[in-house]
Amino acid sequence: MDTNKRYEAGINAMEELFSQDVRNGMAGIKDISPDLWNMIVSFGFGDLYSRNTLSHAQREIITLTSLITQGAFDQLRVHLQAALNVGLTKEEIIEIILHCTGYVGFPKAVHAMGIAGEVFKENE
Amino acid sequence: MDTNKRYEAGINAMEELFSQDVRNGMAGIKDISPDLWNMIVSFGFGDLYSRNTLSHAQREIITLTSLITQGAFDQLRVHLQAALNVGLTKEEIIEIILHCTGYVGFPKAVHAMGIAGEVFKENE
Amino acid sequence: MDTNKRYEAGINAMEELFSQDVRNGMAGIKDISPDLWNMIVSFGFGDLYSRNTLSHAQREIITLTSLITQGAFDQLRVHLQAALNVGLTKEEIIEIILHCTGYVGFPKAVHAMGIAGEVFKENE
Amino acid sequence: MDTNKRYEAGINAMEELFSQDVRNGMAGIKDISPDLWNMIVSFGFGDLYSRNTLSHAQREIITLTSLITQGAFDQLRVHLQAALNVGLTKEEIIEIILHCTGYVGFPKAVHAMGIAGEVFKENE
Amino acid sequence: MDTNKRYEAGINAMEELFSQDVRNGMAGIKDISPDLWNMIVSFGFGDLYSRNTLSHAQREIITLTSLITQGAFDQLRVHLQAALNVGLTKEEIIEIILHCTGYVGFPKAVHAMGIAGEVFKENE
Amino acid sequence: MDTNKRYEAGINAMEELFSQDVRNGMAGIKDISPDLWNMIVSFGFGDLYSRNTLSHAQREIITLTSLITQGAFDQLRVHLQAALNVGLTKEEIIEIILHCTGYVGFPKAVHAMGIAGEVFKENE
Repeated sequence: MDTNKRYEAGINAMEELFSQDVRNGMAGIKDISPDLWNMIVSFGFGDLYSRNTLSHAQREIITLTSLITQGAFDQLRVHLQAALNVGLTKEEIIEIILHCTGYVGFPKAVHAMGIAGEVFKENE
Repeated sequence: MDTNKRYEAGINAMEELFSQDVRNGMAGIKDISPDLWNMIVSFGFGDLYSRNTLSHAQREIITLTSLITQGAFDQLRVHLQAALNVGLTKEEIIEIILHCTGYVGFPKAVHAMGIAGEVFKENE
Repeated sequence: MDTNKRYEAGINAMEELFSQDVRNGMAGIKDISPDLWNMIVSFGFGDLYSRNTLSHAQREIITLTSLITQGAFDQLRVHLQAALNVGLTKEEIIEIILHCTGYVGFPKAVHAMGIAGEVFKENE
Repeated sequence: MDTNKRYEAGINAMEELFSQDVRNGMAGIKDISPDLWNMIVSFGFGDLYSRNTLSHAQREIITLTSLITQGAFDQLRVHLQAALNVGLTKEEIIEIILHCTGYVGFPKAVHAMGIAGEVFKENE
Repeated sequence: MDTNKRYEAGINAMEELFSQDVRNGMAGIKDISPDLWNMIVSFGFGDLYSRNTLSHAQREIITLTSLITQGAFDQLRVHLQAALNVGLTKEEIIEIILHCTGYVGFPKAVHAMGIAGEVFKENE
Repeated sequence: MDTNKRYEAGINAMEELFSQDVRNGMAGIKDISPDLWNMIVSFGFGDLYSRNTLSHAQREIITLTSLITQGAFDQLRVHLQAALNVGLTKEEIIEIILHCTGYVGFPKAVHAMGIAGEVFKENE
């Protein structure tokens, strides 16, 4: 894929994952570092989310798990919404967090579940 | 679920995930701490893997991701085999690791891919 | 221990560790996931804190250290109060954090000490 | 170096890194634990930052990277300012964060870049 | 404490914690970096382990927990032996690891228990 | 940069960092996942190491620090050699590790210094 195509593919993937509002918020990083923005779009979403073999829903299972495991709770909020957007149910998301208790311990799982509760409420 | 049923459910889940040999190896922990063994079986596999809502294949996506993110490469080897046993393909496992590059960086992803290569070879 | 007894043991342990207010706050997780609440009570507090061999004070030394090491500072606040409740002194808690500097570095230790200062003030 | 000299060397290093305001804020830890304050000054800044072989600017490259990698974003803010104070440019700091994407993944890099943007704005 | 006294205090603490053989092994680091050796002895063992308020046994509870939480399994082996040397029983050490399952998840706890089993065998 | 140029830039950067032998070893990952290889070369070395603003020596300071902080000791060995190749001295590398003690604690710093000692010996 050439550079323009990678960027375009990334933008397309982001449109499936995030609302216009969230994408506008993410694009704020362009003011500080246009290069980081390009890497996020072209590598993060173009090279990774645009690949086949796994669905967006499966990719969000991976993303949520990695964010919970590393304690990246700011990004978790955005991806909990993305997970709902690409078709994971509230029940499946809760189940992902429950499964994590055995692998990362309760503190991170409880923290994640609290944020999930807030995101679910915003979607009622 | 009462205590016996939790343990039984755990043993059943482990039979679906791991070969007899692997389960024997895991049971070695009983010699040091029968209580840890009980927690692994009853909580880890009984309470978590025996739940519905997510399939074993989906649970292994979570498990692999969490192990890669926390750098738990000894346990990763066992769960890469379990992932194959419950129906994830070689291509899907590679894709999980590729997706992780964006979330955990290359060092852990490369380490994981190296171990995956060894596990794939054992399954040829 | 059967299921009811595990839950009961967990509730009893929580009563020794946390005030009514804190327990009410923790129970808020039931609205999002009653299953996570059950695991916290039955496994976290029933299976772990209710065991013998280590006192509650010794268990809080472990808990505080693990939370500091993994940077789980939200949960740290609650367990700093629990540590005081089960008899660790302010001096001992400060000493735990000082000892951690050598094992986790200054950034996490300083963060923990700041929170400890706030908790100590609430207990004056 | 004897004890007084280590402390003095630490205070001198801190004066090169941090403004009077920031140093006053950091000294607040003395109210909770004078021993932690002594360790921060004598070991952290006296034994480490006062050494030769690496410049303060090089030391801040290390510090920023370690804080980003471990997700210690509170301390990151203070050291982003220190990095500017000892002569790293805005462009170099952005570049450090970009380089980190490959080693720690995007979530921590994006978080760090957001904070860097705020610190840069305060310095305009 | 002046510099010589800090070093001496560190050497004394190390004698209570480690066998002559282990101390000789640790001192090997002097060939690469005498400065790191000095920091380990003077800060790690002189400033930290030589303090009062907590016993050596309590300090090893902290050390073991931090090492398990950060996955520092090489250092864990040495400190499991130190824990036995300063009076923690095999049962207490097992209990520390069990308590950690709830805070760090099973993979690290299982890894730690395996190493503990080997250390216990060497002490039979 | 278009796709071929990113790959080429990555290969060029790798030639400055690593010996032919090491590059051959790294390329082994192609047998398992040619896509991961492409990402390593094009993103890791093409997009990141080929940028200006920071020298290769400065980039290796970042890389070493991140690897030490996350405990990625397998990759550390390769990058310790790369650090020497791009002009960091043995004394500077030791100093990077010493500086890390204050930010990540002694266990990881000691582990890193042990590996550095082995790499230095191979370069005598």
